[in-house]
Formats: sequence, structure tokens, C-alpha cells
Amino acid sequence: MTNSARQALNHDLSMIVGDGYTLVDAIPDAYTHDETLELDPVEPIAVVFPTSSNQVSELIDYANAQSLPLVPRGSGTGLSGGATPVEDGVVCSFEKMNRILSINTFDQTATVEPGVTLDQLEQALIDTPYFYPVYPGEMSASLGGNVATNAGGMRAMKYGVTRHNVLGLEFITGAGVRSRSGGAYVKTSSGYDLTQLIVGSEGTLALVTQVLLRLSPRAHYRTLVLASFGEFEEVAVAVDSISSRGLLPSILEYIEASGLRAMAEHAGINLGVTAEVSSTAAAYLMVELESMNHDDLEWQTNLLIEVLTGNNSTEQYVLDDTQRRGLISARESAFWTVKKLGANVILDTVVPRSKLAELFKGAAVCARESNALLVGTGHVGDGNVHLSLFQPDPIECHATANAIIELAQELGGAVSGEHGIGLAKRGYLLEHEDPARLSLMRSIKSIFDPLNVLNPGKLL
Amino acid sequence: MTNSARQALNHDLSMIVGDGYTLVDAIPDAYTHDETLELDPVEPIAVVFPTSSNQVSELIDYANAQSLPLVPRGSGTGLSGGATPVEDGVVCSFEKMNRILSINTFDQTATVEPGVTLDQLEQALIDTPYFYPVYPGEMSASLGGNVATNAGGMRAMKYGVTRHNVLGLEFITGAGVRSRSGGAYVKTSSGYDLTQLIVGSEGTLALVTQVLLRLSPRAHYRTLVLASFGEFEEVAVAVDSISSRGLLPSILEYIEASGLRAMAEHAGINLGVTAEVSSTAAAYLMVELESMNHDDLEWQTNLLIEVLTGNNSTEQYVLDDTQRRGLISARESAFWTVKKLGANVILDTVVPRSKLAELFKGAAVCARESNALLVGTGHVGDGNVHLSLFQPDPIECHATANAIIELAQELGGAVSGEHGIGLAKRGYLLEHEDPARLSLMRSIKSIFDPLNVLNPGKLL
Repeated sequence: MTNSARQALNHDLSMIVGDGYTLVDAIPDAYTHDETLELDPVEPIAVVFPTSSNQVSELIDYANAQSLPLVPRGSGTGLSGGATPVEDGVVCSFEKMNRILSINTFDQTATVEPGVTLDQLEQALIDTPYFYPVYPGEMSASLGGNVATNAGGMRAMKYGVTRHNVLGLEFITGAGVRSRSGGAYVKTSSGYDLTQLIVGSEGTLALVTQVLLRLSPRAHYRTLVLASFGEFEEVAVAVDSISSRGLLPSILEYIEASGLRAMAEHAGINLGVTAEVSSTAAAYLMVELESMNHDDLEWQTNLLIEVLTGNNSTEQYVLDDTQRRGLISARESAFWTVKKLGANVILDTVVPRSKLAELFKGAAVCARESNALLVGTGHVGDGNVHLSLFQPDPIECHATANAIIELAQELGGAVSGEHGIGLAKRGYLLEHEDPARLSLMRSIKSIFDPLNVLNPGKLL
Repeated sequence: MTNSARQALNHDLSMIVGDGYTLVDAIPDAYTHDETLELDPVEPIAVVFPTSSNQVSELIDYANAQSLPLVPRGSGTGLSGGATPVEDGVVCSFEKMNRILSINTFDQTATVEPGVTLDQLEQALIDTPYFYPVYPGEMSASLGGNVATNAGGMRAMKYGVTRHNVLGLEFITGAGVRSRSGGAYVKTSSGYDLTQLIVGSEGTLALVTQVLLRLSPRAHYRTLVLASFGEFEEVAVAVDSISSRGLLPSILEYIEASGLRAMAEHAGINLGVTAEVSSTAAAYLMVELESMNHDDLEWQTNLLIEVLTGNNSTEQYVLDDTQRRGLISARESAFWTVKKLGANVILDTVVPRSKLAELFKGAAVCARESNALLVGTGHVGDGNVHLSLFQPDPIECHATANAIIELAQELGGAVSGEHGIGLAKRGYLLEHEDPARLSLMRSIKSIFDPLNVLNPGKLL
């Protein structure tokens, strides 16, 4: 791009968002990538920071008039390259649209702009009886980004993922149509559910300018139990028993023995696991229980320990408060731990819960065949696993990842459970997804964004 | 239609579904209507009973080739005319596709054909630790019908509505595209959510041939508390307190004093409400609590009574088992009670919970102005109300209904909370819905069903 073209673009964008809300020169590195391991940074021609829905609307009109790709960006914490810029495009950062517009405890709702972060929302709710339960781990993530990827996290078994906690949206389609969907209620049967169509569409259909969130009552008491197992198959059976006995953990995570050691070490926490238990454990279950009522929590904890011992758990540790916070925070940071260790790809496939053991076994075979190292953790309550592949050769690495995704699909699963497709997983989706479904998705895209200005090249 | 044309049609349809699975002569009255009060029966040219997905697929192809409207029908218990036939169309009844294909307790899922009824599913699950929690009241309703209308019911506050409990579908679009969406997991971020787009689309986008349902753990203990109030406004405030204290009732219903008397009388149950309480009560709250743990249920019940008395409830009755079943069953049958009493229209608008008092007050004014009698009950936990209008003059009745719906929209609500739009509420939707949203819906319809063969004239 010539310097004069760049200045002309800056002028046009400034007319929409005002002076000081655009970047065209010396674009900071942060805007050239998100947190995806396997993607290279891309420098966009500009970054723009709208502060209102009207400005977003005008930006979309401008993008259509100029055939200019618009790449939406929240906090840039995504793991699939959904916010990776395109070379001839403009990044539309929502970080200045970060107002909490209302909190209505009567309706158990919060209305936020897309740039509001999970942490900011939690702080605003801390003195109310409610909280926003979706917990992808990274609290600096934005709600807009969460909506785009349909972010999941550790609490999905009990509270669902983003789509289960979004009641409504204000949005502007790629064609410039501005509307609202949904409302402050869980029930509606009044036409096609556009809210649910837009949640998880990764900014390819519409830009979201307001999100109406459902809040949940905050439990008064919680406890975290760590249980060791000699074999993964036993973990899977224990999960089945936990559910069938009526326990509904707020967190139910599987961690490989090596993963737990690495996490505890990096975080500097002592979980009290003895050398004897550690030496025979293949895997751990991390189970958080919660209740409004102290005695009920005790009852749940006792039942849990009974179920765990009845399912061959070798030891169970009811963690104290420091250990509990430490372990959850270490699990949250698992991504940073494996990144630091040099992981090349992180998969987040999802399979039916009953197929987890088969997936882990098959994935281990795939990894061995290509000399890749594989470390797994997983949201075992909801079938979503994170498999970190260590294999520096990109071709070998891709082949292994592809084989694992193919296996997941054969087991009735999907490419991504919570990170989204973006750029990094797009090849896998196009290869493995039913062509009929892809074709329906493309047709929907063409209605919402006929000139393909919104996040082109992502997802589809 | 001439007799020979009718026989030719019968021949063609029989080629697809086999002899004995079509009706062209003497079509039973049952297939000419659903349970909507205000609609006249319509005789279709044929009724067809497919028994497999392949047959449904062929029927759709045939409908496209012949420009023949296809009207899907489950059990015909709908309340908006979604299954009302069109005169030149064929009713596609799913009552012979009524197999429960699998129950997987490990995954907490059931896969059913669309003709399976809620009652049939409940019987199949009764010896498992799980149940299907959506409870629209009419247990002879089919799961396919529930998916079409996104059926709600009494347990939505705790368990959500149909869309929150459908994990995946097998479907065939109006264009004949056969595919599956979703899977046996709560998490997926792998493209647009076609499951959620089809749920609630009232058979206008695709015919659903399999439904993958999410099951929930069945509570071991439950109790029902009936509380009287002098004024409706106090009920609304009490609901707020119940939530904010962390109670999550499985049922939270508001019943007007006259409605409770009528229900108890019709059902012949003695709820123990004294004459003194009855004479001063304007409204009642019906609150079901449940738990896995007997002591916790007691704790919840005590807390509930504390909250109720602290919010001016005049009396609270912890019902015994016979009373509990009697009252729930009477509430389930409320529709039949008001039908018998001669109601002309039942509205099921939904508004934010905080706006319920305003809606009830405003609706009473609308009714008074047109000399209509109004009886209200409501799923007060989720903002969805049922307003029965008694006004035999159809023009007056429509005007009153329209005014109430307009008010609901002004309060941030929607036309239908759970019955769907169908034929009966279509006029209201077209009048009050944002034209931009309607236009997006029409474009989506044109992709899925370009020749408009699926349930034409419904919803949009």
C-alpha cells in the first residue's frame, strides 16, 4: 500500500471513528496475531477502534463500499486465529467498546459491549448474588470474543458454554443490516433463533455490538477434590458413576499424571500427593463441588469420595483453600505451561463422553507413529479434550493432528469443542465436515455477508 | 380435487411409504386441526405416514417435483396451528416414526424419532438415573413437535426449554438436503449451529427425522409449596428474593386466585387453603423444590418459607404427596380447564421477569376496555405468561390480543414464549417484529426451502 493510500484510508476511517481511534503506521505487534501457536503474524493495513454501534455500522458500510476486509478482534486471546489479520484488511478492535451497560439482578441479566472482559464483568458482579458462569480460563478474554468462538471452559458440564448463557444480541450483519435478537428471558418461540446462529459464527456473519448475558446464582460453598487413578479407563467409568449418582460438579477435569506434575511445579503448589501415589498414578480427576448449603456440600463430598473409591481411585485429596485456588489457577494456565514447554499444536476436539478413552488411546497411537509427544488434559465431564502435540516438523505435526481429528470425527465428535475454527482449524473442518452442512453454512454466510467483508477466510 | 387425481396422488405416495400408510379418502377429523382454540379445521388432500428417514427424503423430493405443500404433524397438541393443514397440501404425520433409537446413560443422551411422545420417553427412562426435563404439560406431545415449536413448560427456569436440551438433529431441508448437526456433547465450536437454527423453526426449514436429546439427573426428593399473596406485585418481588437467595425451583408458577379455585375444583383436590386466606388472596405462587439429599431439601424448604414470609406471603402450605401431584396435574390441565370454560384465545407472550407486574396490569386494562374477561397464569420464573381471553366477538378479541402483544413487545418481550407462531400468531409476528429480522428469516427460509413446500404460510 502506498503512503498516500494509507493516509487516505486513515482519513476515511477517522471520519467514522474520530481522530486518535485508528492506527495505520507502526502497527503494534499485538494486533498482528492472537495466541494461536501455529500461525505466523500478519500485519493489517489498519486497526480501527470504534466506540459505538453507529460507528461499527458505518465501518461495515465503508468496508462494503471499498471491498475492504474487516477482521473483528476482542482481547486477542483466541487459540484458532479467528482474529488473525488479513494483509489487505482492517482489524476492527472492540477494546474501546468496553462498557457494562446494565446489570439487572431481577432479570438475572447483564448487558455488555463486546470489549468488556470476563474479569471486568466478574468485578462488577462481585457484590451481587449472581455471576457469569462461563469460564474459559483466560479472564482477560472479551465477551465479544467469547460470543464469536462460543467459548467453553471448565464449568460447561454444569453451566453450559457461551451459547447457553447468551440471551440476546445487538448486531450488524455484513450487509449492514442492524437488528437485535432475543431478550431478557430464557423462553421464546417467535421465529428463527438468530442469536444462536450468530453465537459461534466467529465474526463471519455479523459484528456484535451488545451482548445480553444470563447470570447464575453464585454458590456459597465449594470444595475441590483431587483423585488419582492407575488407568485412564477407570477415570472414564468414575465420571459415569459421578453423574449417575446425581452429582453435578462445577468442574470435572481430567489431567494426565505428567501434566499434573508439570502444572504443580510451574505454579509452585504442594497438593499433598505422596510419592507412592504419584509413582503409580496414570491420571487424576479434579472435581469441584458447590452448594448454597454447607451441610449439603459435605454430603456431596462424602458421596463423591464413596463413588471415587468404589471406582478404583487410589487416593483422594480434599484440597484446602490455598491448594484449591492454586490448582484451578494452574489448570487455567495450562496453555501457557505447554506453550512454554514448546508445544507445536493444541487440539481441542470434542467427542461423546463415552468415547473419551478410545480417543485418548487412539491419539496416543497417532502420536507414537509420527514420533510426536502428546500431553492431554480434558474437560472430561463434557467430552472436550486438549491435546498438546510436540512435533517441530510442521508436515509431521499436521499429519498427526489430522489423524487425531479424523478419529474424533469417527467417534461422533467435532473438530473444535471451544476454541473455534478460525484460520488454524479451517483446513481440518473443510476436509472432514459433511459437504451438505458446509454448503448450508456457505449459503447462510452469503445472506448475512454477501460481499464477504467480515472476517474473510475464517471458519469456511 | 378430482377422484382420479386423488387416486393418482395416493398411488404416488404409496410408492414412497407403502400401502396402508396413506389416507386420501374420509380423512379423520383429528388430522384437520391441532388444539388451537381460534382456528377452523382444514381438510388436507392427503395424510401420509412415513416410517423412515429415506421415505421422508423421498416425500420432500416428490413435494418439490409436484409443488405440493407438506405440513408436518407430531401429536397435534400444538396451540398455534403449526400443524393446521393447507387445503391443497399433504399432512406428513410422524406418528409411525416413534422408535426410541438409543438411550446412552454414559453420555446422558437419548436418540429418538420425531413421533416419540414425552410419555413414551419418560417410561423408557424410568429405571435410569436420568430424565428428559422439558415439561410442556401435555405428555402425549411428540418430541418432533416439541423441537418444531421449541416447547417450554413449567421447568424452564431450572432446566431450560427444548433448545437447551437438544444436542443434535438428523434433518432433511425443504431443498432435499439430508444432513446431521450437533452430537452427543454440550460443547462444539465447529461452524454455524444448524441444530439451534432448526429448533423452533416450526417445520418451515427442514423436517427432523432424528433428535438427540440431553438427559438430566433425576432428583431423589421434591416438595411443593403453595403460598398466598394479597397482591400480584408482592409475588414478583418474592420471585426476585427466591432467586437472589440462591434457590433454583424446578417449578415456579404464578396462579391468579380465581384460576387456583377453578383448577382445584375441576381436579377435585383439597389444598387446605382456609376460607380466610382464600378470601384475601389475589394470587398464589406454586414452588417446587428438589434435591438429591433429603436434608438439603428441608434446608431449601425452610429458606423458601423464610423468604416468602419476609415478602408478605399471607400463608404457605407445604403440600403432601397427593396434593402435590394433584396440583401439578391440575396446572398441566389448565388449558383444558379454560377451553371448557369457553376461552376464545390463549396468549403466551414472554417478557423480562421484572416486567411481569406491568404486563399483568396493562393486560387487565386492555381486557377491561374491550369487555373481555382475562384469566392469567404464568411461568413467573421465566417471564412467560398464559393469558386466556374470553371475548366471543372475534374482532374485539383480536384487538385485545393485539394490544396485549404490543404491550409485551414494548416491555422488551416477544409474541410467543413457548407455543410458537404457527398460523394463529403469524399476524401478530408480522405486525410487531422488526422488519430487518423478518427479512433475515425469510432469506434463511429461501435457502433451506426455496420452493416453499415445507409448512407454507406458517410462522413467516
